[in-house]
Amino acid sequence: MSESFAPAITMPEYGVHSEVGRLQKVLVCSPGLAHHRLTPSNCQDLLFDDVMWVENAERDHAEFVQLMRDRDIQVMELHTLLAETLAIPHARAWLLDRKVTPDEVGLGLATDIRGYLDELPSDELAKHIIGGLSTLDLPRDFSPPGIQLVREESGMRDYLLPPLPNTLFTRDTTSWVYEGVTLNPLYWSARHAETLVMKAVYGFHPDFGDAVNVWWGDPEFDHGLATLEGGDVMPIGNGTVVVGMSERSSRQAITQLAMELFLAEGAEQVIVAKLPRLRSAMHLDTVFTLADRDLCTVFPGIIDEIETFTIREAPAPTMLDVRREDRPFVEVVGEALGVELRVIATGGDRYASERQQWDSGNNLLALEPGVVVAYDRNTQTNDELRAAGVEVIEIVGAELGRGRGGAHCMTQPLLRDA
Amino acid sequence: MSESFAPAITMPEYGVHSEVGRLQKVLVCSPGLAHHRLTPSNCQDLLFDDVMWVENAERDHAEFVQLMRDRDIQVMELHTLLAETLAIPHARAWLLDRKVTPDEVGLGLATDIRGYLDELPSDELAKHIIGGLSTLDLPRDFSPPGIQLVREESGMRDYLLPPLPNTLFTRDTTSWVYEGVTLNPLYWSARHAETLVMKAVYGFHPDFGDAVNVWWGDPEFDHGLATLEGGDVMPIGNGTVVVGMSERSSRQAITQLAMELFLAEGAEQVIVAKLPRLRSAMHLDTVFTLADRDLCTVFPGIIDEIETFTIREAPAPTMLDVRREDRPFVEVVGEALGVELRVIATGGDRYASERQQWDSGNNLLALEPGVVVAYDRNTQTNDELRAAGVEVIEIVGAELGRGRGGAHCMTQPLLRDA
Amino acid sequence: MSESFAPAITMPEYGVHSEVGRLQKVLVCSPGLAHHRLTPSNCQDLLFDDVMWVENAERDHAEFVQLMRDRDIQVMELHTLLAETLAIPHARAWLLDRKVTPDEVGLGLATDIRGYLDELPSDELAKHIIGGLSTLDLPRDFSPPGIQLVREESGMRDYLLPPLPNTLFTRDTTSWVYEGVTLNPLYWSARHAETLVMKAVYGFHPDFGDAVNVWWGDPEFDHGLATLEGGDVMPIGNGTVVVGMSERSSRQAITQLAMELFLAEGAEQVIVAKLPRLRSAMHLDTVFTLADRDLCTVFPGIIDEIETFTIREAPAPTMLDVRREDRPFVEVVGEALGVELRVIATGGDRYASERQQWDSGNNLLALEPGVVVAYDRNTQTNDELRAAGVEVIEIVGAELGRGRGGAHCMTQPLLRDA
Amino acid sequence: MSESFAPAITMPEYGVHSEVGRLQKVLVCSPGLAHHRLTPSNCQDLLFDDVMWVENAERDHAEFVQLMRDRDIQVMELHTLLAETLAIPHARAWLLDRKVTPDEVGLGLATDIRGYLDELPSDELAKHIIGGLSTLDLPRDFSPPGIQLVREESGMRDYLLPPLPNTLFTRDTTSWVYEGVTLNPLYWSARHAETLVMKAVYGFHPDFGDAVNVWWGDPEFDHGLATLEGGDVMPIGNGTVVVGMSERSSRQAITQLAMELFLAEGAEQVIVAKLPRLRSAMHLDTVFTLADRDLCTVFPGIIDEIETFTIREAPAPTMLDVRREDRPFVEVVGEALGVELRVIATGGDRYASERQQWDSGNNLLALEPGVVVAYDRNTQTNDELRAAGVEVIEIVGAELGRGRGGAHCMTQPLLRDA
Repeated sequence: MSESFAPAITMPEYGVHSEVGRLQKVLVCSPGLAHHRLTPSNCQDLLFDDVMWVENAERDHAEFVQLMRDRDIQVMELHTLLAETLAIPHARAWLLDRKVTPDEVGLGLATDIRGYLDELPSDELAKHIIGGLSTLDLPRDFSPPGIQLVREESGMRDYLLPPLPNTLFTRDTTSWVYEGVTLNPLYWSARHAETLVMKAVYGFHPDFGDAVNVWWGDPEFDHGLATLEGGDVMPIGNGTVVVGMSERSSRQAITQLAMELFLAEGAEQVIVAKLPRLRSAMHLDTVFTLADRDLCTVFPGIIDEIETFTIREAPAPTMLDVRREDRPFVEVVGEALGVELRVIATGGDRYASERQQWDSGNNLLALEPGVVVAYDRNTQTNDELRAAGVEVIEIVGAELGRGRGGAHCMTQPLLRDA
Repeated sequence: MSESFAPAITMPEYGVHSEVGRLQKVLVCSPGLAHHRLTPSNCQDLLFDDVMWVENAERDHAEFVQLMRDRDIQVMELHTLLAETLAIPHARAWLLDRKVTPDEVGLGLATDIRGYLDELPSDELAKHIIGGLSTLDLPRDFSPPGIQLVREESGMRDYLLPPLPNTLFTRDTTSWVYEGVTLNPLYWSARHAETLVMKAVYGFHPDFGDAVNVWWGDPEFDHGLATLEGGDVMPIGNGTVVVGMSERSSRQAITQLAMELFLAEGAEQVIVAKLPRLRSAMHLDTVFTLADRDLCTVFPGIIDEIETFTIREAPAPTMLDVRREDRPFVEVVGEALGVELRVIATGGDRYASERQQWDSGNNLLALEPGVVVAYDRNTQTNDELRAAGVEVIEIVGAELGRGRGGAHCMTQPLLRDA
Repeated sequence: MSESFAPAITMPEYGVHSEVGRLQKVLVCSPGLAHHRLTPSNCQDLLFDDVMWVENAERDHAEFVQLMRDRDIQVMELHTLLAETLAIPHARAWLLDRKVTPDEVGLGLATDIRGYLDELPSDELAKHIIGGLSTLDLPRDFSPPGIQLVREESGMRDYLLPPLPNTLFTRDTTSWVYEGVTLNPLYWSARHAETLVMKAVYGFHPDFGDAVNVWWGDPEFDHGLATLEGGDVMPIGNGTVVVGMSERSSRQAITQLAMELFLAEGAEQVIVAKLPRLRSAMHLDTVFTLADRDLCTVFPGIIDEIETFTIREAPAPTMLDVRREDRPFVEVVGEALGVELRVIATGGDRYASERQQWDSGNNLLALEPGVVVAYDRNTQTNDELRAAGVEVIEIVGAELGRGRGGAHCMTQPLLRDA
Repeated sequence: MSESFAPAITMPEYGVHSEVGRLQKVLVCSPGLAHHRLTPSNCQDLLFDDVMWVENAERDHAEFVQLMRDRDIQVMELHTLLAETLAIPHARAWLLDRKVTPDEVGLGLATDIRGYLDELPSDELAKHIIGGLSTLDLPRDFSPPGIQLVREESGMRDYLLPPLPNTLFTRDTTSWVYEGVTLNPLYWSARHAETLVMKAVYGFHPDFGDAVNVWWGDPEFDHGLATLEGGDVMPIGNGTVVVGMSERSSRQAITQLAMELFLAEGAEQVIVAKLPRLRSAMHLDTVFTLADRDLCTVFPGIIDEIETFTIREAPAPTMLDVRREDRPFVEVVGEALGVELRVIATGGDRYASERQQWDSGNNLLALEPGVVVAYDRNTQTNDELRAAGVEVIEIVGAELGRGRGGAHCMTQPLLRDA
């Protein structure tokens, strides 16, 4: 990480020690302006799967937040955190210096746009950094020379600051792994801006400042083929991290993360789940999550095709010991946890199972052992979880689910018990 | 139409004389088994846009039906109509003779499948004719020789009878135009089976039998490039039919329909709206519907690109007089109606407008002049309609809307006042 | 087959008794006007993979024809055959009655177009039936009323008669199987017009008339899901027919063909090769052809995934005996031939092998046992064939290969020794 | 540019002062190993349009090189230049330090791979830097721990160094504009490695070292949305640079380039051609090139949709003066050149014209005024050029053209007269 964030001593108030231990603090990001920008013709470019009814998505997200607060979980919301960060002058300058550049905004525009943004109140500025800035948002008399070159096509305008609708999925951007965090270089370069926002928050917000231990990753630096997304990262406990190796999370990143964790004694082993290259296996947490100390939910078609490897520290010069496991993935994870894992497959017949996996049926968020949040629409999977003794709290997925992420994707735990 | 359906004298109880007159009878088709078959990996093959939460779609559709019944509209449901039709032995034989053939089901299977279906109660049979029949639905001991050749791939099975999820859109399959109906040859040959079902219902069901005047179209015959879908057909009144000429509805079909209407004095002119070839302009009713005697809703981006033609009868040998109109489409329609049409564009800024068109914001069903049914999610369009004095009754679109059709698509008026 | 072609006694001059016996007569179709119509933006709609340099394709095709003629093979060319057929007045009327209909050409155009075509010389007419007719081909003063409705988009015009560029692949349309032929219902309905042309030729051309024994298939009838393409049909000898069951050739068609062959004692068994659903396994002859009595070329990746079934006659009422084979496909074929088949895999490393399969490296045409025609570009596969003692005659594939078919696809044997 | 390349005084031996002046030195890159890696299933990932017959492509490219040498043009070939560069130890170290990193190659592999590459002869190393390195290229006993995590899928292996097949198009990577060059940040991040190779060559090769004046761009730095590709950059003479603003070349890059040119007095004005967003308008040189002092070839459909802007220097603080031009693009270019430009449209009817544009019919390389190199297949366009007095030298496009680039794309002029 760059020098502006000298890693400090680890503070007790952040740290994620399992996937199912009691959740104490969590980061989310409400839907908002960025999703108002989505249309059927631009949503692919903006890397979002579908358009949503934003008002209802906001309502359903607010209910999700409320149910966590009702259980004494401290929920931090990204727009709010970012606005509080931007209220600090040098934090605001740090972020705008990196976002409003000729490379991003264009010469003949960058200076004027910076001037405009400098005057915005912090909450307005936070809204536009996440929600994007288009020429429609500017005052009518705003006309620097470069503005004429900005495209207007089929009624859509090229953005001056791009909208970041995937901030909804706070899981991807950064990953708390035991007592530190990764600042993930996301697969699509258009999403790198999301991690930069998180670096500003972790680096300057008073609740984090000078306290965050970064294991790996720096959004100010181009990590090339080393990409990592949080949906593939699971600190399951017992010094073990499970990482999905997918199109999105590469061996280049996983091996570096493993090495950093071993060097800093942050973890003892990394279990790599090499996923098949399928759209439906985008992240490990779309086909596998833990629901209780000894219970997981899996999408069988894909889980059965996982190749499993274990990485441990090795003496120099090799440094990494990589071993291919012969046993099935779930068995390897169970052994690391010291339990025999019970398995709940995505429910219903083959049609229903495939449909529920698509609808994030495997993407559970555990609030504590045996208590999970899930979308209402995956009725058969939820029934099977209940039959296995799990308390399933349902949230409405009609709109939120259109981005193809569930409760696990929409949350980044900040403090969770072992 | 084939001889088995000798067109009879027109009966007063069916006939659609406008797009906004008081609706008295209407045909719908509930979601059901066919939609349980949809998965992310097969929905494209089954020509359906997305998977849905079927239970909620059923609930929302039932509410839609109930609100029409509450207004004394007689709502006929296709599963019920088909079951009642299949209870008549020669109707059942007629339909199964045409569906369970070696060409459709395969030799070495057709005889056994026919035997199996012959034994089913009528409602079960109707369920499978619309919802499809897979090897999973058969008794375990059912094993004719051809069954081994049926594919099982990625867990999905080749169907013995294909599911027909698009029956949900009763608008497409047949079109009541004044005092007769068209049996539409749909664009995708996989959908021809839908029209065959409708031919059985209109031909044998006691409520229709011997009373239906068919203008054009016969699902037992391959119409080649002459394809027509009901979302493009609007009998607006005053002897005028507006027809969208789209990828789905071809000039080959439109010219034949026009000629049949003129010869039988079923209509005086056909206004052709030549739509641009865009996914978002699939049918005319996705970008234009009437909400009141003098009020329409339009999606401006596409409506402005329509080329308009008027077809009238001409003396032999030419028969058809085709004239290109210089005025905009909406003006031509208004003149035909003898009013100056007020126009409500899909609401909100450009982003919202495009999104609401996608979400069927223009796909209104008028129950009577100035009273329309619309999806709840298109809040801005609905607000603008209300501001124009229209009563907007909202139905839930979260699931039903995933098939990319609204209240207009999901209904086929059978009796409507001028 | 319809009554207009009462099957007659089999004449000795047509019949295909193997895949590698001495070839005596063969049908081809030169590239031409249809390929001049292809552009990058319409080639997908016209079901052709790429655009080609037509002049060079014509030159390379002519060389291919010449080399066969140099070996005393009688080569019949479809444009010529069709022109000779159309010179017979009732044959011309028969075909135009079926092509120039309101369903295909549109009312308000069909009569005038028919009048125009009636006046064309036979070779001109043959050129347009295969190459299509666009409004650009018509005299300037040709203006029936329906012409205004014909689309002109991005400079391309809707066709009055559609071009049939896939006639280049005479293999697909009809299949000689021992002493009779199938008139194949092709997978894409846009290609049904190709089979209709062949029905006219087989039915009226003096070289065939009253002499062709049709096993199965009728282009005047919609066969629904029963589709068959000749690239999947191989009469290998010994009373055996190998048929690929692919996306294009369905069990509905294969079982009917088997039954017709058994009933007429045209063959004794059908070996079904159930191909995986992959673009690269479009037809069986894209992954497997025979090069000599005991030698085949295969694309290993796909051949290994074939499931093999054998169909034989069974007593009524079952009629068909379908058996799943446990042995690999090549072994089953070898046993049917009474030889141990030597196997040449598509040559080179994995990259080259995949590339050569794509470039029709497995799509050999045997002129006689051990003498094959192949594209020049598949150098490694050709080298391996030569090393196995096969004489490989190369033709230029730079242009012809862009349609994704090789020498096997571009020929329909009419007379071949056992 | 980074400090390691302190721009030096401009040397007379490099500089491009027009698009049609006498060509004296030019850079090309032969097809080779990278193209042997292409298969139908990976070519999209490797950003190359189609697979080619590499041996013939090599032959055709060699003929192209030879015809230029026959005209006393000095042709430099990239593999050769790179090998000569890598023979310099600190140049070799500089490049490998930047290519063989944990981010690109993976931890647990980078060290061993570096060791392996350090031992390779320079020409072998150059071959693998351009052609890629796969696990198949390594000695059998090469087994660092990280190698197990490298994917093998459908027979294709994840690359240790990715192949760079687009180096064939030397036009894209760097652009000589009068007396300096740009090191272009290409649109696809997978292509950034190409520019890094060029930076090594320009920075260390004795023919260039310490002599190259870089206007803008640095492949060691992530330029974000500021992307530029050489097919959009044309120094037409008279102090004017024409730049296509396309999906690939953004206003963020163009405005920076303009400013750098103005500040260093490298040019006086930049004419921006804002292209529509279409696959067929990938770069300006796919729809427009100059063939003579007063003659250009254009693809009309797209040229007519260009919006034209002129950028000139303005006083601080605005710096850039951007003006929208009302006249057509070709007229603006003609005025800048002080001539009335004659226009040759891509030849033939609409079908042929679209096909020839696709086949790089507009992508001419002028060797001197009125003498151009073009693909043989675009016969009609070439005929029209000849009719206009241009000498057209044809090269074979059957294979080379499959990458969708012609003689202009495959060359980077290094020294060209005004």
